[in-house]
Amino acid sequence: MSELAQRVLNGELRALSRVLTLLERNDPAAAEAMEQLDPRTGSGYAVGITGPPGVGKSTLVDRLAEHLRGLGLTVGILAVDPTSPFTGGALLGDRIRMQRHYLDDGVFIRSVATRGQSGGLPRIVKSMVRALDAAGKDVTLVETVGVGQTELGIMGVADSVVVAMTPESGDSIQTLKAGVMEIADLYVINKADRDGANQLAAAVTAMLQMSDLGDGWNPPVFLTQAYANVGIAELWDGITGHRDFLSDSGGLEKRRIERRRSEFLETVQEEIYRRITQRMTKDTALSGLLDRIAGRTAEPYGTAMGLLSDDEELARFGGGE
Amino acid sequence: MSELAQRVLNGELRALSRVLTLLERNDPAAAEAMEQLDPRTGSGYAVGITGPPGVGKSTLVDRLAEHLRGLGLTVGILAVDPTSPFTGGALLGDRIRMQRHYLDDGVFIRSVATRGQSGGLPRIVKSMVRALDAAGKDVTLVETVGVGQTELGIMGVADSVVVAMTPESGDSIQTLKAGVMEIADLYVINKADRDGANQLAAAVTAMLQMSDLGDGWNPPVFLTQAYANVGIAELWDGITGHRDFLSDSGGLEKRRIERRRSEFLETVQEEIYRRITQRMTKDTALSGLLDRIAGRTAEPYGTAMGLLSDDEELARFGGGE
Repeated sequence: MSELAQRVLNGELRALSRVLTLLERNDPAAAEAMEQLDPRTGSGYAVGITGPPGVGKSTLVDRLAEHLRGLGLTVGILAVDPTSPFTGGALLGDRIRMQRHYLDDGVFIRSVATRGQSGGLPRIVKSMVRALDAAGKDVTLVETVGVGQTELGIMGVADSVVVAMTPESGDSIQTLKAGVMEIADLYVINKADRDGANQLAAAVTAMLQMSDLGDGWNPPVFLTQAYANVGIAELWDGITGHRDFLSDSGGLEKRRIERRRSEFLETVQEEIYRRITQRMTKDTALSGLLDRIAGRTAEPYGTAMGLLSDDEELARFGGGE
Repeated sequence: MSELAQRVLNGELRALSRVLTLLERNDPAAAEAMEQLDPRTGSGYAVGITGPPGVGKSTLVDRLAEHLRGLGLTVGILAVDPTSPFTGGALLGDRIRMQRHYLDDGVFIRSVATRGQSGGLPRIVKSMVRALDAAGKDVTLVETVGVGQTELGIMGVADSVVVAMTPESGDSIQTLKAGVMEIADLYVINKADRDGANQLAAAVTAMLQMSDLGDGWNPPVFLTQAYANVGIAELWDGITGHRDFLSDSGGLEKRRIERRRSEFLETVQEEIYRRITQRMTKDTALSGLLDRIAGRTAEPYGTAMGLLSDDEELARFGGGE
């Protein structure tokens, strides 16, 4: 076993941080480390916390981490931040508040910038969740921003998904309709001291009763005031309740198998894309093709489809760099 | 030229609809049609309308279409709907209201379901926008739901991007911070008769003044009441103002070239992925690999990277089906 993997298994946070950086850089050493860490995964639990901007997700994650530490559990936090396409920087404002956890070796915090324009949850988060699991984190909290359809990615990353909203967000019920109902294992109405919290809870409950999601789990609705630490213990009990349900029903194993399969497929897809774009800068035939597409002498869709019908051309994408 | 492409160029809406369906089905006939239509594109203008759920995007699009028809322009509408990952169905509720346009040959409406879990705007929308352009639509309105980072995809599809919000959405300023400022060419505060509209407009304007987006365009902020048809003509004048700015500054050509390039690259990427997943069901070696990944005897990340270092393996993905 490599020294790096061994140090991760020993719980060294700097080694863990190094593996995540290698993953971000597509460094071949990341593959080696992940292969060595993989057999030691499976004991950790991944919780996704998602919802629109402004509902207090960071505070919820902060308070949950605190609660878990009180229970003697170690915690990983992956905060998936939207990246500006222009500056490339992640929005780290709210993270500063979490810095007190940095004094605690039982909490590992990492911001993950989303790149590219798809807006989806980066595939790399799946690999990172496994790395944190191997490093011995009992619970990994994955915080993502999103609304409706855009939150679906979190399903592929977390064992339990918590959807957070606030009474203030007039869009909450619309958001539910736009696909959130099918990803939420638990609902949180945060800032529950504000007007309309009970009405929103009742509305969500009513919508849940009208729908049958078919897997035998009835998503509970929690009222929290994360800032004042109200309702956090109850939320965690709800999450463990869902974990036990999944574990007993076989759903946990099913989700995890699906996550491994999609991590593989998405890695293949992303890596091919990365190589194509890299190749474009070096390969005159390919960059000439792009020039023709830009110059309107070649059509984008048909050219792409035609290129892929040629085995030899395709193999060029996979070749040495 | 194929009969299908000829019929599209003649403005037959059923032929246009057929091409979009072929695109959705990855039918080889789509590539042929797109290659024949491509030289006839370039005269249409694509406008993206995005914003969180509940801000009245559909009504805005509806009213804009009406206004454009009044100006004697033909209109295409691509409504990108979030798809339920379970039912596969798009949310068509608001579309019903638009059906009155079906009686008008000058308006072509199509719902595009987003598939997959990325939440991003489907690559196929870029191809569809070109098809509508070739079919002679003067203006194509692309409506998407999104917040923050998730809206970025619209940049890659539209010539001008309109970001819609409402005074009610407490998240509006947060949303702006989360990356929207960099994609909006114009802002609309819809439901402007409600409390807080002017304050929100002032806040947006203040944020815009503090930032320098560097391309010389100062995004205007419009107050609309789409339901009552208030502010729609002014919004359209704002859009044509942006179009003229882009046209004069060379930005329009730049955006369109970038769109063609990304359409090509994304088509290659998606098509490879589609073939891989398709191949998994037929190829025993590959499906055995997926079984090993699921069964934890192979590691997802390293296996994917290893697979791609082998030219011959990679070529298998591209081969005949």
